[in-house]
Amino acid sequence: MKLAHLSWRKAEPVLNNPDTVVVIPIGSTEQHGPVGPLGTDWLIPEWITNEMEKRTDILVTPVIPFGVATHHTSFPGTIDMGLETLIAVMRGVFTNLAKHGARRFVVVNGHGGNDPAIEKAGLEIARETGALVALLNWWSIAPQLNKAWTTGHGDAQEVAAMMHVHPELVDLADCPKTVVNELSEDFAFTHLSAIRYKGAVVKLVRDLKRGIPQGGFGGLASENATAQWGADMMTAIVDYFSAFVEDFRKVPLDRIEDR
Amino acid sequence: MKLAHLSWRKAEPVLNNPDTVVVIPIGSTEQHGPVGPLGTDWLIPEWITNEMEKRTDILVTPVIPFGVATHHTSFPGTIDMGLETLIAVMRGVFTNLAKHGARRFVVVNGHGGNDPAIEKAGLEIARETGALVALLNWWSIAPQLNKAWTTGHGDAQEVAAMMHVHPELVDLADCPKTVVNELSEDFAFTHLSAIRYKGAVVKLVRDLKRGIPQGGFGGLASENATAQWGADMMTAIVDYFSAFVEDFRKVPLDRIEDR
Amino acid sequence: MKLAHLSWRKAEPVLNNPDTVVVIPIGSTEQHGPVGPLGTDWLIPEWITNEMEKRTDILVTPVIPFGVATHHTSFPGTIDMGLETLIAVMRGVFTNLAKHGARRFVVVNGHGGNDPAIEKAGLEIARETGALVALLNWWSIAPQLNKAWTTGHGDAQEVAAMMHVHPELVDLADCPKTVVNELSEDFAFTHLSAIRYKGAVVKLVRDLKRGIPQGGFGGLASENATAQWGADMMTAIVDYFSAFVEDFRKVPLDRIEDR
Amino acid sequence: MKLAHLSWRKAEPVLNNPDTVVVIPIGSTEQHGPVGPLGTDWLIPEWITNEMEKRTDILVTPVIPFGVATHHTSFPGTIDMGLETLIAVMRGVFTNLAKHGARRFVVVNGHGGNDPAIEKAGLEIARETGALVALLNWWSIAPQLNKAWTTGHGDAQEVAAMMHVHPELVDLADCPKTVVNELSEDFAFTHLSAIRYKGAVVKLVRDLKRGIPQGGFGGLASENATAQWGADMMTAIVDYFSAFVEDFRKVPLDRIEDR
Amino acid sequence: MKLAHLSWRKAEPVLNNPDTVVVIPIGSTEQHGPVGPLGTDWLIPEWITNEMEKRTDILVTPVIPFGVATHHTSFPGTIDMGLETLIAVMRGVFTNLAKHGARRFVVVNGHGGNDPAIEKAGLEIARETGALVALLNWWSIAPQLNKAWTTGHGDAQEVAAMMHVHPELVDLADCPKTVVNELSEDFAFTHLSAIRYKGAVVKLVRDLKRGIPQGGFGGLASENATAQWGADMMTAIVDYFSAFVEDFRKVPLDRIEDR
Amino acid sequence: MKLAHLSWRKAEPVLNNPDTVVVIPIGSTEQHGPVGPLGTDWLIPEWITNEMEKRTDILVTPVIPFGVATHHTSFPGTIDMGLETLIAVMRGVFTNLAKHGARRFVVVNGHGGNDPAIEKAGLEIARETGALVALLNWWSIAPQLNKAWTTGHGDAQEVAAMMHVHPELVDLADCPKTVVNELSEDFAFTHLSAIRYKGAVVKLVRDLKRGIPQGGFGGLASENATAQWGADMMTAIVDYFSAFVEDFRKVPLDRIEDR
Repeated sequence: MKLAHLSWRKAEPVLNNPDTVVVIPIGSTEQHGPVGPLGTDWLIPEWITNEMEKRTDILVTPVIPFGVATHHTSFPGTIDMGLETLIAVMRGVFTNLAKHGARRFVVVNGHGGNDPAIEKAGLEIARETGALVALLNWWSIAPQLNKAWTTGHGDAQEVAAMMHVHPELVDLADCPKTVVNELSEDFAFTHLSAIRYKGAVVKLVRDLKRGIPQGGFGGLASENATAQWGADMMTAIVDYFSAFVEDFRKVPLDRIEDR
Repeated sequence: MKLAHLSWRKAEPVLNNPDTVVVIPIGSTEQHGPVGPLGTDWLIPEWITNEMEKRTDILVTPVIPFGVATHHTSFPGTIDMGLETLIAVMRGVFTNLAKHGARRFVVVNGHGGNDPAIEKAGLEIARETGALVALLNWWSIAPQLNKAWTTGHGDAQEVAAMMHVHPELVDLADCPKTVVNELSEDFAFTHLSAIRYKGAVVKLVRDLKRGIPQGGFGGLASENATAQWGADMMTAIVDYFSAFVEDFRKVPLDRIEDR
Repeated sequence: MKLAHLSWRKAEPVLNNPDTVVVIPIGSTEQHGPVGPLGTDWLIPEWITNEMEKRTDILVTPVIPFGVATHHTSFPGTIDMGLETLIAVMRGVFTNLAKHGARRFVVVNGHGGNDPAIEKAGLEIARETGALVALLNWWSIAPQLNKAWTTGHGDAQEVAAMMHVHPELVDLADCPKTVVNELSEDFAFTHLSAIRYKGAVVKLVRDLKRGIPQGGFGGLASENATAQWGADMMTAIVDYFSAFVEDFRKVPLDRIEDR
Repeated sequence: MKLAHLSWRKAEPVLNNPDTVVVIPIGSTEQHGPVGPLGTDWLIPEWITNEMEKRTDILVTPVIPFGVATHHTSFPGTIDMGLETLIAVMRGVFTNLAKHGARRFVVVNGHGGNDPAIEKAGLEIARETGALVALLNWWSIAPQLNKAWTTGHGDAQEVAAMMHVHPELVDLADCPKTVVNELSEDFAFTHLSAIRYKGAVVKLVRDLKRGIPQGGFGGLASENATAQWGADMMTAIVDYFSAFVEDFRKVPLDRIEDR
Repeated sequence: MKLAHLSWRKAEPVLNNPDTVVVIPIGSTEQHGPVGPLGTDWLIPEWITNEMEKRTDILVTPVIPFGVATHHTSFPGTIDMGLETLIAVMRGVFTNLAKHGARRFVVVNGHGGNDPAIEKAGLEIARETGALVALLNWWSIAPQLNKAWTTGHGDAQEVAAMMHVHPELVDLADCPKTVVNELSEDFAFTHLSAIRYKGAVVKLVRDLKRGIPQGGFGGLASENATAQWGADMMTAIVDYFSAFVEDFRKVPLDRIEDR
Repeated sequence: MKLAHLSWRKAEPVLNNPDTVVVIPIGSTEQHGPVGPLGTDWLIPEWITNEMEKRTDILVTPVIPFGVATHHTSFPGTIDMGLETLIAVMRGVFTNLAKHGARRFVVVNGHGGNDPAIEKAGLEIARETGALVALLNWWSIAPQLNKAWTTGHGDAQEVAAMMHVHPELVDLADCPKTVVNELSEDFAFTHLSAIRYKGAVVKLVRDLKRGIPQGGFGGLASENATAQWGADMMTAIVDYFSAFVEDFRKVPLDRIEDR
């Protein structure tokens, strides 16, 4: 059930029902390496929530297509809202829905940079109303379900997902090799903003394009993506997320609010 | 062509092309009277830009589903970002795209409350980069194309549009009569936040639900919507918007930047 | 009765009286075409509220001389507070007066760009305290009282008003012809930020001075202003506004707060 | 010469003239003790700048009637903009005028709480453009010109000034005795937010109305004001301020900008 | 007792005790004239509160080393948080501690530019919770205890204090003479941002380094500092502050909250 | 070398030297489980940077004792600045130091919640000036140096560090058992804001105190801390950090800025 498809009169009892789980798909429009589409981070959550809707009873908000993409703005097509703005957007979503009764929120997130904003706004609504907010980051849950589904920004994991979700948007034939401009001999990039130094990983803040001019890096290079990986992974994610919602709905709210 | 479907490498030359017209669909998720879906304001721009894409060469950003809905938050399902937040969101869209070359923006807007934020951010980017920003508000252009297509919030005009765009989302059989709780004998509501007094209209700021408990008001009541009206009006709008883009693309940018 | 002239001890019972109507004159300091004074937008509300004070019992706040003039800052002498700042200023006015009992506010506004800020702050106080906020925009009410009193920014309507209110500040002998630099053959300016395209008006966001280098445009050119027009129009406005206040005072507050 | 009275075409050469001194009158609308009018802090600067205008060539902006009155909001009629908002307002004034050439600003201030905001915005414009900003606080300059003209908030100094500037607004016959509710035996109030402890003064932050329920305190009680004091003091202030402007105009700007 | 040294379980009863006086040392990291260390403004409050802790029972928060140093940023090593940020920081300190019971706050401040932010946040917490907030500015209390301990920014008073508190950080042998670049013959600097004109002092807002290139100015030049002055002054300050806290603890809170 | 100990004249050449590495210790004042001191997160970075100073040539800023502790404010003694405020503070530190030449920043961080703010402000300064910003989070590097040094908030890892750094502040004899109030049978807490569900970890946003009333959780319970662990770990960290700085200093800045 999509919130945007209901009239306010139809939405009223759904929001007021303590068993309603509100699912909020969110992502980012930002570079995703040499072949990943700019919309990767929100197209996947949009697809996931559409699938979840077929399996369990949820109220899905419109997908939020922009997020915190500050690191990526040197790459054309990236649209960054910034951290403070996403906090305000999420506050708007949580506050307005909680005002009319919603108390169970599941954010299906496609972009790690969004986490601090979601958590901040989520904590506010949790404290104000006793709401529960779960944050399902598909790309970090996937490798916990199968170690082979290793993750990195704009790399094979995300491309594989797109090959299942929107195969027409990926052209692996046009995939240049990943280039890395190392900072120095002592520091080797392990992710876009991280380097390895003497066995440990250190965050290194710099414009990404200087170090990784193609934009994708961290796990396996994009060229290793396959449609089968995408299919297996997305199926597992939808199974997991749907089951999660079913159990999340059963957490007794009174146990929470009484504390 | 959808921005989200391109990789950054494919987006780069498109944004850098001075003939590219970037189209930004935006709306709101808010009450739309007794039968209008909560997503009316963004579902229509999304449909319009999809149709425009078939007729002319444009680069369409992801639809922005939330806007300035502060007046409507007493109605369940409304999600308000607030004026300041929408300014920040629009600034993000304009700034990031202009950074990589975009100079012609057409905002296809489905919600009047968004106008001040779009204009403010648009003026900033116009001054900083010489970009041109046009704001196409379909609901206010429609009655200029045909006087019968009269407008008001959440009333027959918007419902008729939805009956063409997403007929499955409108159920006219379940349409209660509009109720108006007048302020006093001297002041008669003409729109949601406006009253008529001695022949002239005055803005009256109050929580909407006190005055118009069903939410839709201003032109014709929702029950008067027809699919034919929707079809005729939406066809005219897509024709007009597509032609506009064609001519907007031809405005010589050098004439603008030289001044 | 002017708020600034009372001691706080004298203001206390006035603010606490539920029949008190607080009138807030506000405008802008910004270009007003080839001959209009920069203060046009606030000098007129200041004059109107002085006249209203002679006819009906009101509590008038100090006039707010700056507003949202972002579009006009390319013209010397314009002072722009910006949208966010005016929201904060209006919030300060409403909140501090409502804290001590005021519940009926009439904003006498001389500048359209101020509307969104006034409405936002007004809606907040309405929701927090049940206050009623009316927004009387003299320039838009005038043509509803008499069709000949047509309106446009910095054009004959405002100049005529000034010729009645402060005749010494207008010198029609020094009035250059209006110049319009059209964008292209397809788009003809109808107002400062609006163009006509195929029979409908579209907002066009650009630095104003590029299109309309004298600044005034929209209705009749400034040279058409007459003192008689000004006298007739201002008299009608003061009559209308004074009558409005009388009836606004009578709206039973209990009908409002009980809903 | 008043900025608001000029058309933008007339204002243009004045702002562009490096000898132009822009004078900005500013105050506050806030409680001023048992008999002082709420507008005391801006009515006096408005009067001063009107007098200065008769004696020297200045460009006077509209008076800013609201300021930082946070300490006084428990008293009816006080309108507080808050520190952050006044910074934004002053930034608007300085930035917009400097953009068109103004480089010499004299702020004629009637309220101490405004100082930090004026200084912050003034320092910004000084650094960006090399402008000079002087801050003339009449109430603190007065006792330096004559020790008898001692100062305190809402006390005899300000009442005396009002008795000269707007005698009709002061009624000394209705002046209750000042009451002070001391915190304890060890701490004696010396000003509204300050106590004396063992021979030194310490700032004590508390709602003012708890300690000084009439609002005025610090120098001499209001009942000691006289029209003669007001006349002598205001004459001396206008003399001083006018002379200051004359000499401020002569400070060679090149000596400043070359450093 | 230092807050940072307690576990939350140990802090809980201390914060909940109405007799607890919370002491907040705060300063700035900014230029202090030719020989004063950049940390002067917070090293002194840190030392003072350490001494106070030996004499009376207080709960000391971590020292806040950055403040409002906007005037000083042209001098290397200065770190400015800005006024708005310090308001937010102080709000965080007051709000979080008051939430768990604290009601008596003494701010030991080493930098005058911090005052407006401390007062604003302090007034908020006073109004919300009935808390008492005292602001002990050591440099302004010192000359009230002994007239010889005259004050000015980055001059002998502060250097003398440092010679007692951290003698190893001051090298008077390397102290260049103070240079003053006067604005003109009419205006003589008396402090960093103030000039004397015809017998009265006027604030003059300009980048400090243009007028006083060594940074320290106002009272006695740094070269006049002595260790004895520092010792006498610091002892008197610690005596005074410790006594103040003892008496501040005794102010009956019920007398305050009942009003 | 401590920035606060230098006069601005001594700081000038240090900041201007391209080989200077500026080290910024930062933490938080917040609950650290049943026995950890509230200052754990900044006392450790303060100690680390003091040790680093003995081994390599660095310029150390004052330690920032407050951070983003929003999750912990239900525990007495926690002081939260909030995400937006820490961004502003870090922007102040980076901007002011880079203005005078600093280009190599190493943030020694003791609290994970600070990361997004540090990264945002760091990225800004990197883009504006070409500066390099490294973020050394000791608690996350430690387990990469030795798997036994497992991490969790307010648990044995941090307590062990404190037992080496400030042994007098830890009393393991007074260490109650960790209590966990699980949400339901399906969801088991793994960290303060995370639960395990069917083999994967999901973020769960809720007031922490409801789930983990003692505050510390995630790795090993506090009672398992030992002084030996602390000594070994802190030595390894200081070795690693000092070596890192040495190599970070050598990264050729021209390679970075030329790109």
